[in-house]
Amino acid sequence: MRVVPLGGLGEIGKNMTALRQASGMILIDAGLSFPDEEMPGIDLVLPDFTYVREHASELRGVFLTHGHEDHVGALPYLLREFPEVPVYGTRLTLELVRPKLREFGIKNAELREVRPGERVDTAGYTLEFIHVNHSIPDAVAIAAHTAAGLVVFSGDYKIDLTPIEGGTTDLSRLAALGSQGVLAYFGDSTNSERPGYVPSERVVSNALRDIFDEAPGRIIVASFASHLHRIGQVVEAAKLHDRLIAVTGRSMVRNVQIARDLGYLNIPASMMVEQHEINNIPDRDLVILTTGSQGEPLSALSRIANETHKTIRVRQDDTVIIAAHPIPGNERKVSRVINDLMKRGADVHYSPLKPVHVSGHAAQEEQKIMLSLLKPRYLVPVHGEYRHLRHHFNTAVSMGFPTERIFLLENGSQLEFRAGEARRLQNVPAGMFLIDGASFGDTASDVVVRERQQLSADGMFVVVARINAQSGELLGAPDVISRGFVYMRDADGLLQEAIEVVSSTLQETARHHITDWGELKNSIRRDLSRFLADRTGKRPIILPLIVEV
Amino acid sequence: MRVVPLGGLGEIGKNMTALRQASGMILIDAGLSFPDEEMPGIDLVLPDFTYVREHASELRGVFLTHGHEDHVGALPYLLREFPEVPVYGTRLTLELVRPKLREFGIKNAELREVRPGERVDTAGYTLEFIHVNHSIPDAVAIAAHTAAGLVVFSGDYKIDLTPIEGGTTDLSRLAALGSQGVLAYFGDSTNSERPGYVPSERVVSNALRDIFDEAPGRIIVASFASHLHRIGQVVEAAKLHDRLIAVTGRSMVRNVQIARDLGYLNIPASMMVEQHEINNIPDRDLVILTTGSQGEPLSALSRIANETHKTIRVRQDDTVIIAAHPIPGNERKVSRVINDLMKRGADVHYSPLKPVHVSGHAAQEEQKIMLSLLKPRYLVPVHGEYRHLRHHFNTAVSMGFPTERIFLLENGSQLEFRAGEARRLQNVPAGMFLIDGASFGDTASDVVVRERQQLSADGMFVVVARINAQSGELLGAPDVISRGFVYMRDADGLLQEAIEVVSSTLQETARHHITDWGELKNSIRRDLSRFLADRTGKRPIILPLIVEV
Repeated sequence: MRVVPLGGLGEIGKNMTALRQASGMILIDAGLSFPDEEMPGIDLVLPDFTYVREHASELRGVFLTHGHEDHVGALPYLLREFPEVPVYGTRLTLELVRPKLREFGIKNAELREVRPGERVDTAGYTLEFIHVNHSIPDAVAIAAHTAAGLVVFSGDYKIDLTPIEGGTTDLSRLAALGSQGVLAYFGDSTNSERPGYVPSERVVSNALRDIFDEAPGRIIVASFASHLHRIGQVVEAAKLHDRLIAVTGRSMVRNVQIARDLGYLNIPASMMVEQHEINNIPDRDLVILTTGSQGEPLSALSRIANETHKTIRVRQDDTVIIAAHPIPGNERKVSRVINDLMKRGADVHYSPLKPVHVSGHAAQEEQKIMLSLLKPRYLVPVHGEYRHLRHHFNTAVSMGFPTERIFLLENGSQLEFRAGEARRLQNVPAGMFLIDGASFGDTASDVVVRERQQLSADGMFVVVARINAQSGELLGAPDVISRGFVYMRDADGLLQEAIEVVSSTLQETARHHITDWGELKNSIRRDLSRFLADRTGKRPIILPLIVEV
Repeated sequence: MRVVPLGGLGEIGKNMTALRQASGMILIDAGLSFPDEEMPGIDLVLPDFTYVREHASELRGVFLTHGHEDHVGALPYLLREFPEVPVYGTRLTLELVRPKLREFGIKNAELREVRPGERVDTAGYTLEFIHVNHSIPDAVAIAAHTAAGLVVFSGDYKIDLTPIEGGTTDLSRLAALGSQGVLAYFGDSTNSERPGYVPSERVVSNALRDIFDEAPGRIIVASFASHLHRIGQVVEAAKLHDRLIAVTGRSMVRNVQIARDLGYLNIPASMMVEQHEINNIPDRDLVILTTGSQGEPLSALSRIANETHKTIRVRQDDTVIIAAHPIPGNERKVSRVINDLMKRGADVHYSPLKPVHVSGHAAQEEQKIMLSLLKPRYLVPVHGEYRHLRHHFNTAVSMGFPTERIFLLENGSQLEFRAGEARRLQNVPAGMFLIDGASFGDTASDVVVRERQQLSADGMFVVVARINAQSGELLGAPDVISRGFVYMRDADGLLQEAIEVVSSTLQETARHHITDWGELKNSIRRDLSRFLADRTGKRPIILPLIVEV
């Protein structure tokens, strides 16, 4: 039986892992990564499906650990190629997946709900779902009883001893598996550098209560739309303070609805305020739940902060809570939003100054608990950059774990288990699959997919715009340079119209005083891409370059 | 008397501040900022000299608080325009400035050394230099006795009660000024969000000693080349462990020499190892001091990590200490270096896991001490983003400071002091002055200056290269697109040669297995820019775009 971690970007074994034995192949998770700033024109990074394609006839199922983008975001792309393969997940995970598949036009996907504690038999595997705590409900670890032995995948987890909902990570079941005998443990390494434990989700409610007590006017809370426990705590705080709740941001609106339907959130209809009614509610009676906790330029919070939101404008006496921690790479975006909100007079609260966020990934002591319970023969630290895997290694060694039975893999590593032993085989292809998007929303499902080959076939447009640094106004006409874009009819006329589309986009953004370069570029890409797709049916890469003058 | 903060990028009153009264104008500091990732083709950001130019005839002096780039980096550009203006600074500050001026070909600059405790009279001002602790020696606060009253500028400071050298921040003198009566205090806000005190520099020596005790082989320490106290602690640890010292990285080599010449570092000649001798020294006898603590792609540490350094290759049994904290925006670069070093088997130590770095900027309690000592009538938080100014404001208010006497300014704000009162006048121009570099080194002095107007006049080259994601190899010929670049002779031939230059650069980087996109771009820019300058005398903006396939 072989295990092959297959993605994501700079992190090992996060987006997708393949298990393969004579009787068939299964995948654990099908997620995507986000590009770093060195990848212009690229919106998403998918794990490489080459290995999966090479063994397509053996593929028997995809097993999802939880509903985060980096674990389910690639599913539409996978199902587009392998429409027959069944997908197993917990109830909430599948509910979050369904809208994605709909937006991609994938019908008739075989989605099979599994409850924590339940097992699935397929292709000679027995997969057991085990409840864990994470920053999204209905997350599971997966215990794979394979021909070679029992391999446990932690998925993303922490150990929360006073959880909001769903109970603590199923330590008893993990202990029982450990007693049976665990061949290998593939464990979450995200917080391997962090000593101690991560705090319980419950500490956030104390922080929220204190802030709600003091807030003189409106309260705006930004959170990940998938963090239903966090949202639940905001709802409870709102109830305690007799405030109503409005929701803004597409994915937040959608997820709050899903959560209410499934019973994760209990918000009476009388408590909900429609977005268009927001300005009729007295400030002291209102909590606004919003997306944008990562400073994403087009998100609701950013637009609230820079006054481009349709209905909500930040003002003095607003209290803003950013109930999330910037993912590495997003620190400056978040800083920009904080500065904008503060400049407009809002009182802004964020971690670590206030404990309005706790991590969803286990720290060192929790990692030690897992190793103590599972007592695996082999440890494979995953879900982290090399440095995180290394620290997980160090933590295990500090407990006496033999170094020769810890594997630090790369994506594409093949680890073979046979007769109770593990060894590395030759690596398989595991590059990255880069996707350029033409439109943007809060999730990947708005992206138009192009195959790597098509990226070259449809060519590229470089747009150079000179803008006034202070006002964001366009200076002179933008320059549009095309390469590899073949359009036989009226190429000059097309280029001229493209220039007009970009000019008009920039006049619009100047009118809204948008000087966030990320936003400007997104606007240009969105508008120009639509224009070119409408006019020519082609989707070249659009590369906007802003020169401030 | 008016005070006008003039730069830098996203931070207020950091790079340069102008003071203007009837009898003349002076500047405090002349530093630069580094661009964020939204500014392609731009290497440096200077404060806007417009205000200075408008009152050029009144300019009487530039007073430098300390030798960091964000306080002295713009001096060559300033002196190029105003060659007569005297520059006042402490001994080390001027020693660090001299090589910059030399590299810019600025001769006959009027550099006047001032000792902490000394005063300078000019243009109706008396400027007093007051010793403070910072992450570079010879840093001062500046007390400006002006026609309107006493205004104190903290510069960058902390309060280190067990400093390595130079004594603690001169609390007595600050108290005396407070007793005299301080009209306004312009105070460092960098660490305004941080409660408590920052630790003394001395805690680093304990951490170093522990790590040195355990190190089985070579020890490589990356630090800011200007942090002479930090370097001094590394030297002391090396002495304690009978290790020799080698130095790599241009600015580190230069600064260690300056520090030895001025007596900041005591390294006997017998302890120094030349770079070319490094491989002759037994591993356990060696400490290598290097640049690259911010993960800069072309720095010595990065090249050591990715095996492109001429003499030093990281290996198993190496102990690497990154004695710095990533400046916001650099987190991923530093992470990349840490991962590379760990993958090659090195043991890597970094803050906050090990206390091998402490901040050079005052935290909240130190800010309160300053306010208690100076008892200023007005507080102007500076040197920070808006959020940092805001938290400095909050800290002052928590001590009972009246809110109406705290000013939160922007760059370009004019604050007028008259008859003991302060008020805002209309803002003056204070945009950003963007500089595109043609060659790269560890400091700004390698940069060829072009005026903003010239940026457009010499045009732009966009280079698109498709490279193999795994190997870094160039796929097909690179695409070179020029715009606004006027070269009458043999334009086609030139373009073809440009393509060859870029191909050859990329073949070279592939040979060295460089897949760091930042490095690839820097290499392309450097080589193509040299080629175009040699061939045509022009210096267009070079914009490399890497598409991974």
